[in-house]
Amino acid sequence: MNPLVECVPNFSEGRNRDKIEKIVNPFRSRAGVKLLDYTADSDHNRMVITAIGKPEAMYNAVIEAVGIAVKEIDLRQHKGQHPRIGAADVIPFIPLRDMDLAAADALAKKTAESIARQYDLPVYLYEYSASAEHRRNLASVRKGNFEGLSEKMQLAGWQPDFCTAKPHQTAGATVVGARKPLIAFNINLDSDKLEIAQAIARNIRFSNGGLPAVKALGLKLETQNCVQVSVNLTDYTQTSIYQVVETIRTEAAKYGVNIKGSELIGLLPLQALTDTAAAYLGLQNFSVSQVLETHL
Amino acid sequence: MNPLVECVPNFSEGRNRDKIEKIVNPFRSRAGVKLLDYTADSDHNRMVITAIGKPEAMYNAVIEAVGIAVKEIDLRQHKGQHPRIGAADVIPFIPLRDMDLAAADALAKKTAESIARQYDLPVYLYEYSASAEHRRNLASVRKGNFEGLSEKMQLAGWQPDFCTAKPHQTAGATVVGARKPLIAFNINLDSDKLEIAQAIARNIRFSNGGLPAVKALGLKLETQNCVQVSVNLTDYTQTSIYQVVETIRTEAAKYGVNIKGSELIGLLPLQALTDTAAAYLGLQNFSVSQVLETHL
Repeated sequence: MNPLVECVPNFSEGRNRDKIEKIVNPFRSRAGVKLLDYTADSDHNRMVITAIGKPEAMYNAVIEAVGIAVKEIDLRQHKGQHPRIGAADVIPFIPLRDMDLAAADALAKKTAESIARQYDLPVYLYEYSASAEHRRNLASVRKGNFEGLSEKMQLAGWQPDFCTAKPHQTAGATVVGARKPLIAFNINLDSDKLEIAQAIARNIRFSNGGLPAVKALGLKLETQNCVQVSVNLTDYTQTSIYQVVETIRTEAAKYGVNIKGSELIGLLPLQALTDTAAAYLGLQNFSVSQVLETHL
Repeated sequence: MNPLVECVPNFSEGRNRDKIEKIVNPFRSRAGVKLLDYTADSDHNRMVITAIGKPEAMYNAVIEAVGIAVKEIDLRQHKGQHPRIGAADVIPFIPLRDMDLAAADALAKKTAESIARQYDLPVYLYEYSASAEHRRNLASVRKGNFEGLSEKMQLAGWQPDFCTAKPHQTAGATVVGARKPLIAFNINLDSDKLEIAQAIARNIRFSNGGLPAVKALGLKLETQNCVQVSVNLTDYTQTSIYQVVETIRTEAAKYGVNIKGSELIGLLPLQALTDTAAAYLGLQNFSVSQVLETHL
């Protein structure tokens, strides 16, 4: 047994290079943790770190990084094209090997408790770790954003799980939980009309009767003078990447708009990639075991 | 240093299950060799084995399997929709790890020499191991098939590299050599007209001025009542899989014919798969390191 966990914390800083590096640092050169990627997006004004490692080492890295984020980020000054309620906005733990969701859940709750205690930071548990059904979905927890947090915390059913008094003045609150692997990708459209991206996102997201396991947002990217459909695919075995992309392509075509480009954020499982290639190439009986590297 | 070689021997038996299993057996449960795949095709009347392993263990497995093929297969009785000159038709060695083409070449030549000596079987060296430029391409070496072999061996420049007297009466000759990884796939067309598959193959193959690194044949699959373009891609960094497939799709459309399905034979490198998915999805800056499994 050699448990391995993935952590993909999202921080509300995507512009200041100095602050970004400071927050990433705890995931660097730490025994038992491997920093795989960090992507800062200046339109989103947000950074996503991807790291894998041993549970205890990951716990220490996350606690340290959240401390730096609380110190460096002031949400009262923060503007960006992505929903957020906190400086350390959301911290998901994904079990990769020799670990189940229950073990990742225990790690998430231990982390949540420490963050709340050390930094006086309210924490909501979400996904597998959620304390109530209506708090499982990130969009629900984050609804109202940082600006509406003080009011939200007074509503029935929306008291945080830890540190329940009031939002942290500058760092808001944090959402922590265990979840299954998720595939995050953004599709940029050859248009600057936000309402088109929003209409497509509304059409494809599952909560509106769209594609199973799909969450989607329409955003405007000022720096690229275009709009974007930002997608979270929570179960690629229910809906595959190419189904999402081809549906967006078809929906966009209704407005005479093309896909301009796309990007994958963080990691994806090999199976999701082989499913995509097999679908486009029309490959029959193709399996992951035909990938050479799986045998090395 | 822990050298690893791939061997993808092709045998001229794709119908008799008993003989197929006998030929595959030497690659099974042998220390240092891992049998990854064997695909028998009854239209081609041919089997392709994919195995990886330590050079010395692979050498022993190949020698044993060729001995069985020589005993079990009689080319005088053999009919199939694929060019061949021998029972053990072609034996490529591909260096995978801690090995270069020169080391794979040495292994190929040692194997060739043993096969010739032990089984009285003429052997041509091809690809990297070829003894002359005009013998590098498999199609040139195999031209004339088993039926024309006796005559071919008398032609200037076509004496085998080992065992030069005459073809083996029932097993013909064998082609052995070291080469870079090759991606083999078949595209089935929704048509039974052989001339269409042949015209498309002619159009796309590099030797006729088509796509770089592409070899292609048009074949008829009697059992599936359709024709096929059978492709060998010798360097996917020169021409990618999706370029080949989309070119075939476009060429077939000229005849009002669709792609019915496709299949990948054996293994492919992860990079070729990510290139394919990235191209179809329009992914920018996508890299192999975003595949989760590459970090485990």
